[in-house]
Amino acid sequence: MGNSFGHTFSISTFGESHGGGVGVVIDGLPARLAIDLDHIQEQLDRRRPGQSRLTTQRDEKDLVEVLSGVEDGASTGAPLAMLVRNADARSGAYDHLRELYRPSHADFTYDAKYGNRSIAGGGRSSARETIGRVAAGAIAMQLLDALAKRRDTPAPRIVSWVDQVHEVTASVDPALVTIADVERDPTRCPDHDAAAAMTIKIEQARRDGDSLGGAVRTVVRHMPVGLGEPVFDRLEADLAKAMLSLPATKGFEIGSGFGAITMTGLTHNDAFVPGDDGMPRTATNHSGGVQGGISNGEDLVFRTAFKPTATISSQQDTVTVDNEATTLAAKGRHDPCVLPRAVPMVDAMAALVLADHTLRQLRNDVL
Amino acid sequence: MGNSFGHTFSISTFGESHGGGVGVVIDGLPARLAIDLDHIQEQLDRRRPGQSRLTTQRDEKDLVEVLSGVEDGASTGAPLAMLVRNADARSGAYDHLRELYRPSHADFTYDAKYGNRSIAGGGRSSARETIGRVAAGAIAMQLLDALAKRRDTPAPRIVSWVDQVHEVTASVDPALVTIADVERDPTRCPDHDAAAAMTIKIEQARRDGDSLGGAVRTVVRHMPVGLGEPVFDRLEADLAKAMLSLPATKGFEIGSGFGAITMTGLTHNDAFVPGDDGMPRTATNHSGGVQGGISNGEDLVFRTAFKPTATISSQQDTVTVDNEATTLAAKGRHDPCVLPRAVPMVDAMAALVLADHTLRQLRNDVL
Amino acid sequence: MGNSFGHTFSISTFGESHGGGVGVVIDGLPARLAIDLDHIQEQLDRRRPGQSRLTTQRDEKDLVEVLSGVEDGASTGAPLAMLVRNADARSGAYDHLRELYRPSHADFTYDAKYGNRSIAGGGRSSARETIGRVAAGAIAMQLLDALAKRRDTPAPRIVSWVDQVHEVTASVDPALVTIADVERDPTRCPDHDAAAAMTIKIEQARRDGDSLGGAVRTVVRHMPVGLGEPVFDRLEADLAKAMLSLPATKGFEIGSGFGAITMTGLTHNDAFVPGDDGMPRTATNHSGGVQGGISNGEDLVFRTAFKPTATISSQQDTVTVDNEATTLAAKGRHDPCVLPRAVPMVDAMAALVLADHTLRQLRNDVL
Amino acid sequence: MGNSFGHTFSISTFGESHGGGVGVVIDGLPARLAIDLDHIQEQLDRRRPGQSRLTTQRDEKDLVEVLSGVEDGASTGAPLAMLVRNADARSGAYDHLRELYRPSHADFTYDAKYGNRSIAGGGRSSARETIGRVAAGAIAMQLLDALAKRRDTPAPRIVSWVDQVHEVTASVDPALVTIADVERDPTRCPDHDAAAAMTIKIEQARRDGDSLGGAVRTVVRHMPVGLGEPVFDRLEADLAKAMLSLPATKGFEIGSGFGAITMTGLTHNDAFVPGDDGMPRTATNHSGGVQGGISNGEDLVFRTAFKPTATISSQQDTVTVDNEATTLAAKGRHDPCVLPRAVPMVDAMAALVLADHTLRQLRNDVL
Repeated sequence: MGNSFGHTFSISTFGESHGGGVGVVIDGLPARLAIDLDHIQEQLDRRRPGQSRLTTQRDEKDLVEVLSGVEDGASTGAPLAMLVRNADARSGAYDHLRELYRPSHADFTYDAKYGNRSIAGGGRSSARETIGRVAAGAIAMQLLDALAKRRDTPAPRIVSWVDQVHEVTASVDPALVTIADVERDPTRCPDHDAAAAMTIKIEQARRDGDSLGGAVRTVVRHMPVGLGEPVFDRLEADLAKAMLSLPATKGFEIGSGFGAITMTGLTHNDAFVPGDDGMPRTATNHSGGVQGGISNGEDLVFRTAFKPTATISSQQDTVTVDNEATTLAAKGRHDPCVLPRAVPMVDAMAALVLADHTLRQLRNDVL
Repeated sequence: MGNSFGHTFSISTFGESHGGGVGVVIDGLPARLAIDLDHIQEQLDRRRPGQSRLTTQRDEKDLVEVLSGVEDGASTGAPLAMLVRNADARSGAYDHLRELYRPSHADFTYDAKYGNRSIAGGGRSSARETIGRVAAGAIAMQLLDALAKRRDTPAPRIVSWVDQVHEVTASVDPALVTIADVERDPTRCPDHDAAAAMTIKIEQARRDGDSLGGAVRTVVRHMPVGLGEPVFDRLEADLAKAMLSLPATKGFEIGSGFGAITMTGLTHNDAFVPGDDGMPRTATNHSGGVQGGISNGEDLVFRTAFKPTATISSQQDTVTVDNEATTLAAKGRHDPCVLPRAVPMVDAMAALVLADHTLRQLRNDVL
Repeated sequence: MGNSFGHTFSISTFGESHGGGVGVVIDGLPARLAIDLDHIQEQLDRRRPGQSRLTTQRDEKDLVEVLSGVEDGASTGAPLAMLVRNADARSGAYDHLRELYRPSHADFTYDAKYGNRSIAGGGRSSARETIGRVAAGAIAMQLLDALAKRRDTPAPRIVSWVDQVHEVTASVDPALVTIADVERDPTRCPDHDAAAAMTIKIEQARRDGDSLGGAVRTVVRHMPVGLGEPVFDRLEADLAKAMLSLPATKGFEIGSGFGAITMTGLTHNDAFVPGDDGMPRTATNHSGGVQGGISNGEDLVFRTAFKPTATISSQQDTVTVDNEATTLAAKGRHDPCVLPRAVPMVDAMAALVLADHTLRQLRNDVL
Repeated sequence: MGNSFGHTFSISTFGESHGGGVGVVIDGLPARLAIDLDHIQEQLDRRRPGQSRLTTQRDEKDLVEVLSGVEDGASTGAPLAMLVRNADARSGAYDHLRELYRPSHADFTYDAKYGNRSIAGGGRSSARETIGRVAAGAIAMQLLDALAKRRDTPAPRIVSWVDQVHEVTASVDPALVTIADVERDPTRCPDHDAAAAMTIKIEQARRDGDSLGGAVRTVVRHMPVGLGEPVFDRLEADLAKAMLSLPATKGFEIGSGFGAITMTGLTHNDAFVPGDDGMPRTATNHSGGVQGGISNGEDLVFRTAFKPTATISSQQDTVTVDNEATTLAAKGRHDPCVLPRAVPMVDAMAALVLADHTLRQLRNDVL
């Protein structure tokens, strides 16, 4: 239970950091979608460790194999399963962890819940599990593109970027930023100066045996009106769940978010103005593109908070599995800041939510 | 679609601000639970309008009728349905809204999605819909109590309170605050000085034809270890969805939340210390009671951001349903600040998530 | 759990033979469907006890109230809830059942599973629970009609009838039979001679303190091609589940059904022949309108077996709740044959399955 | 959509007769279950083609690989994914099928629904898809065994056998038959004389270019009381769906089944008699082990009808994909009777239903 996401466009991920591999099964993908394997691999490469000196040096190719659901380059309507084999598992590197619980990791809770914990690389709680999400997210993006093309409308364009690392904040125009801007720098921060400052910060943290928190901001332009299924499956509720299901996340806000707390109705309300195409537009976008749980056609804007990587090489207090005090200094390879690699994960989860809600909305267009 | 919540303990709400009434069907409630109807009504009374001068003067009794699923005072294992009749609907009061879209309301998006919008009182997007949630949440609380009693452990104790209204921030000890403390003041802020300042602020906003945002903070003490179903149904992911599914919410954070952004691993990691009962405890609780998506036995701590009420009596720019510019000054009755009435809704959603995850975890205790 | 049916067009029923009433919540109904309340009531009247001397004399009006989801005569896209109040509950009539388990009823299993059983009228296992299904089924029929009209195709026409009572078998042409034919006789058997023989049989059974089994046959003409979601949600699999979820059912077969056992491939295979409209047709229909779990456009044909009513006034051996031998002769009012009243239930379940699969298929028509 | 089965113990299958392979992901498996890989392979070997001269000569080893969810020989609580690679795909053998629709196959309906059809071996509608079900079913059996052991009760013992092939009917005592009896003969009919007659029949059908229908009967002994979730997820409703989701099935009946039609209440009702262990037993078992949708502790008894294999080498009329008349005589390898290989599929589906309902029932044992 708990390993599937989505109602009509639904994914189930499987696999852990050790064992045969990680993967995903997509159920609900419409037939006849041309599948672009290179695009899937590109998204996986954005997520992959070892892609820059800012990320862990675990060297994994993460080559994806499509096991089913595609014939002659197009989806068949059957479940589309994808597998990425595990490699480079140095399980010996984790021997010193057998007898203790790492602070702020899932070791203790997995042990308490399941009676086991996968020491080697984090098991199911490893960020490797997100490979299946990113691969499925790529297909969700392709579906959104194809649907928009069929309807002769611009496709929703999801762009996430590193908005903040510790105290370094980026200044980015959500109306203009592109994925190319984001990919220009290994930090995945499109503000050049902020990116430079973040790089210095991250490298310093690595040297200090420490790690840094941060935030990813996301904009979706060309949003269709009408996505979201109140009252529980509001668009922002499903996005919140999607983001909080990613490892290391601590918060989610949409539009004005926590800033709304100190606003008043007069400043927060988004006044409607007549739109050029006969549809109302809003003068401001504190709503973040959703009203009453349903997209209003304005840009979808949200932000996700990530905690500092739990694995640090500095010494920390902890306990053994027998509840005795001990200390730990992690030896393995790890990212001092998860933010750059979190960007494609956020993109993928956003795409999955949008694809699901696009298919769910079909029922309201039939009468 | 979208009107059910929960996997094993599942609720479906129905009803809108006009029409026959609002209600809920609970499916998955274990048999043999003694049902305390007074407690359900108490929770509804906390949510009800007209309970203090701080809230809307719409006078509704909101008396609940149990339609099914209870016999001789106990749950039968069959669906438990509850109904609250609508009353005091002055639909004439809404006539001036027929031709326009209210800013930051669901009017436009409902119209775009469904081809209709319930002008009278907000229809399905009305806060009245949460009556079903609050009633079901009361039963979830009773279930959590009964299960804990059977296991001879303390029951999870959910306490939410108004933590902030605009710039007035409360100072409250999450380890000690009780529901009685919360209920002492109509603001539902247990910090006496802050409550007084909030009251002044809210009354001023009403006079100004304006409204105020704020935040609700929640603590759950006596949390069992092991609740949460990674990878998608992590406990915090389901809580995030639950809270973002409430009207007027803009953000959710757990533990350190957005504060984690500017922390480092050394300060953020919760060091384990040997617990008295043979179980590890943490020295700090930046995790907010969840690690790897699973509760670790520490207090569950989270915070939900609410926007200022969209309905204000000041004049605002908007458009007609024909996309022409116009203005609006709301006449109906409304809360200048939703926070006091949001508290029981947050409590209810938290209880629903915990009850569901408690039942879902049963499968891991059988071998 | 277990009280919802359907994926995209989903219903949840609630209520039992005693208590406030029985009802249903429909989630997933498209907005803008004109709701014909008279048609709903008509279907309920077909199901209702006391409609003829062949059925139980329990006199219930079963008037339906729409609680939500309809405004200005059309569906709003929000959950459509309907309630039928209970009445005429002579619970005293059941006093003699308090201390024993009735043979082939749900008394013992409910008691074993839930620790209670609703003696008065069968509780949740009562056929009264099907009121919600029949009401929702009526709306499903209206949806199918409206969708077909929008697509300018003939609407699927569901016709069920009593095909057999004990050893009396009807001879009916599935290609021509209409609901009007079915409604002509209280037996709901459109074969006039068979209906007369069934009537004699049923009245004799009542006099004998006995009851009779039988079968309902169903045809759906004007079936669209392409309904069904392999591999688990094949159309016939969902129909089988739908029918076996009705009280008193013991079997389901589609097309050739159990007759296929003694056939060979040469006689069973449905040869394709060129259809007039460019679509292949089949020369025979042993498939019953489904191939590979998907409708092929031929008439959907299936049959459902019902056991003899468990409640009989003859004396039977049974045990007390304390596992001691005793005897029982039922006193209440009951149908000596459930078949006539089963027809609208089968119609309703078929409509629910078709409506759900029609909405599910939408995703395959978008690319 | 449609490729998952089960609520709490849930499986999702993927894969088709061509491509990378077929497999299954199990979600909801409790942690700490010792996994017996040999037993899984044994069940797959029962299903595999080429195991005897009665079945197709397609030679496939069907070796299963566990991709995830198992560590140190036990389930971890994470999704358990299994993969069986495809091999021996002679797609050239299917070239003559490119231009036509095979009678009573899924070619036409898949083409109509999805715009494609997997000619080579049947694609997703191939019986190869059931590999994932059989593998998951083996694990479900292991779970049922382990749970029973923990409760110190005998494990439910599922035994299916070939009850009928064409007009040859077996005589078997459901109270005594064992899997070893079933496995003794390649027909999987434990009645020695009937098995011999079936063998002659099947070999004759192969020589005649024809095929035969038949029935599988199933008994589950040592059934726990209380499984089944009325009103929709009755045990027999979920079993009916499970069986009708298998390829080539046309009917399902439980207990008296279609025989109930010609019975009366006096003969059909199962009189209760005092049981030795303080629990009521029934003198007869026309109910088939289920009353009111819930198991009553008597043997679960049901029967599934299978049509004759659609692939036959005799010449048949059909149409081209352009709706023109043509003829077809199949060349590939195929079973003249699916019954022997259907037995392990029925066993697997029964195990999946029982495992799911066993976990679902946990919620009713907590208070």
